[in-house]
Amino acid sequence: MTTSARTNETEETTPFEEKRVVSGIQPSGRMHLGNYMGALHNWIALQNTHDCFFFIADWHALSTNYENTRNLISNTREMLIDWLSLGLDPEKSTIFLQSDVTEHAELNLLFGMITPVSWLTRNPSFKDQQEQLDNRNLSMFGFLGYPVLMTADIALYRATHVPVGQDQLPHLELAREIVRRFHHFYGPAIPEPMPLLTPTPKLPGLDGRKMSKSYDNCLYITDSAEVIWEKIKTMVTDPQRVRRKDPGNPDVCPVYDLHRVFTSAEERLTIETGCRTAGIGCIDCKSILRNGIERVLSPAREKRSEILSNPQKLDSILEKGAEKARYEARKTIRIVRDAMLLPGKPGHLELH
Amino acid sequence: MTTSARTNETEETTPFEEKRVVSGIQPSGRMHLGNYMGALHNWIALQNTHDCFFFIADWHALSTNYENTRNLISNTREMLIDWLSLGLDPEKSTIFLQSDVTEHAELNLLFGMITPVSWLTRNPSFKDQQEQLDNRNLSMFGFLGYPVLMTADIALYRATHVPVGQDQLPHLELAREIVRRFHHFYGPAIPEPMPLLTPTPKLPGLDGRKMSKSYDNCLYITDSAEVIWEKIKTMVTDPQRVRRKDPGNPDVCPVYDLHRVFTSAEERLTIETGCRTAGIGCIDCKSILRNGIERVLSPAREKRSEILSNPQKLDSILEKGAEKARYEARKTIRIVRDAMLLPGKPGHLELH
Ligand code: SF4
Ligand code: SF4
Repeated sequence: MTTSARTNETEETTPFEEKRVVSGIQPSGRMHLGNYMGALHNWIALQNTHDCFFFIADWHALSTNYENTRNLISNTREMLIDWLSLGLDPEKSTIFLQSDVTEHAELNLLFGMITPVSWLTRNPSFKDQQEQLDNRNLSMFGFLGYPVLMTADIALYRATHVPVGQDQLPHLELAREIVRRFHHFYGPAIPEPMPLLTPTPKLPGLDGRKMSKSYDNCLYITDSAEVIWEKIKTMVTDPQRVRRKDPGNPDVCPVYDLHRVFTSAEERLTIETGCRTAGIGCIDCKSILRNGIERVLSPAREKRSEILSNPQKLDSILEKGAEKARYEARKTIRIVRDAMLLPGKPGHLELH
Repeated sequence: MTTSARTNETEETTPFEEKRVVSGIQPSGRMHLGNYMGALHNWIALQNTHDCFFFIADWHALSTNYENTRNLISNTREMLIDWLSLGLDPEKSTIFLQSDVTEHAELNLLFGMITPVSWLTRNPSFKDQQEQLDNRNLSMFGFLGYPVLMTADIALYRATHVPVGQDQLPHLELAREIVRRFHHFYGPAIPEPMPLLTPTPKLPGLDGRKMSKSYDNCLYITDSAEVIWEKIKTMVTDPQRVRRKDPGNPDVCPVYDLHRVFTSAEERLTIETGCRTAGIGCIDCKSILRNGIERVLSPAREKRSEILSNPQKLDSILEKGAEKARYEARKTIRIVRDAMLLPGKPGHLELH
């Protein structure tokens, strides 16, 4: 397309953005390093290469926590502070709260009209979670429809790419199926989102199990340098290495698993040899890990205190993000309404 | 409450309107007399005694007709013209299009989070319709969630009353259950809508079966006086009354069933006696029926031509209706969001 051909009309009818990414996380309060590596780390990298829309999925949080919303407001705030302190940049990305953009609910409703119930009940993660969370009586309509809302979240910004770990691929495939079904009935209107496979290493916690709030084994983004060091010192190592002079095996040591993420390959080689030959003690090894972790946390701490010295900026970040998000969302809703031949042109969909 | 106590704050926190009615109909194109008696007739009476919100349920129409939306725009327009010509008055009632008020989708989403799937699958009308419409593959998520959206439609305006026929009582009871469940989790926030039992006579069509578009046996609101008379002349009567001198039995005559609706009790007595004694012929009997029907249709025809001479007014009626509806809807959404302790105060919820 030549520059002269870029008339307004052409712009209006060009349906797909080049490289737009959408992703969201449920507000679960302060983040730990496992959360960071699972999503934020990738998001921060994507900011420089893609047009990114990142949102706090507060409506999604209701699908499992409708009974207890007491912490939703503080969790949202804490998570936003973590995002920003880790390097998510409102100048580069559109950062917003899902419920600030009502259009998520509208597209959810429209997609729900064409999504077979059987697609949702056969969804393996629905079955899994049903079993896991059985005692909490989770067979709610909204929980069943989780993939429909997720599809709406993505399609609402005409995302071309969605960052996913290998284990989330089936979710995205379901979203793609719903979008294809939409196209089947109403013609091609929105991009079919492509997976952007991203590394999502599972970090071990202090006890060697997966790092998770419910195990109380986490290194938090908000932990002070002292707390981090105290925690790392207590972390389990190769259980066979009882004394300093015993050689160890990094392959069975959770500390080494963290090195794989936070320490350079070069340094890791030295550690590995040192461990296997008892040339390095566990405390020294952990001290190197601390340095790696502090390379992430120390600047985050600085950024955090900057944010907390001007907390009203948090609101304005969400407001501006919602405004940008709403603009794109309304554009999509108009495209979708037109494709579906729906009546009505509500005034609030006017773009300005 | 004394007048002096009606400060802004008090108004804000007064949760329930006195007598507010909400009701909607799916846009199915031009209406027949059966549709009129089933709903519109009651709505027109309610306008004078209640604060009424009447809407064209275009989103609901998708739950069964998502595959074919070709006629949705024209059906919406035709139905609106019928409503107005029959006497629905935008000065008295708030008349609007469901999809013009996105908040229906938002409340639908929120109610969905707390509605057990089992309440929806056990819903008798879901089961019935599933069986009836089996060949059209209707097990869509939106179809299953029909009662959730219906509940949102009602609660969005904090309705105190919903006009229902006897057969629709179970639907409303489900809506009330969802509202009670909401109160259980988040405290009392919105009224539990009461049924307003209204007569909904089933009118026979020209062939004696229920008047229905699919039987092609209807008297339409848009039919001219000539067409109405031609149709009535062909209408089946008591099949035992073959000749003029044979006595008839009004109890088995569909024409008489229409008399029950459109003819005064006094005149009916004369007809009944005349029929049973062969004192009146069927054509004379039908001519009296025509008069009764014309008492409804003749003014509607006048009103219609007035409307069609100024069709742009239709858009402005829907626009104004949507504006009024949106104001109340946003008030409710704020009440609901506050009750649920949701984060976010999106700017578009500001009331002005
Ligand atoms: S030296 Fe490091 S890798 Fe080896 S056992 Fe100790 S903590 Fe683990
Ligand atoms: S006289 Fe009227 S009521 Fe009696 S059979 Fe004829 S049409 Fe029916």
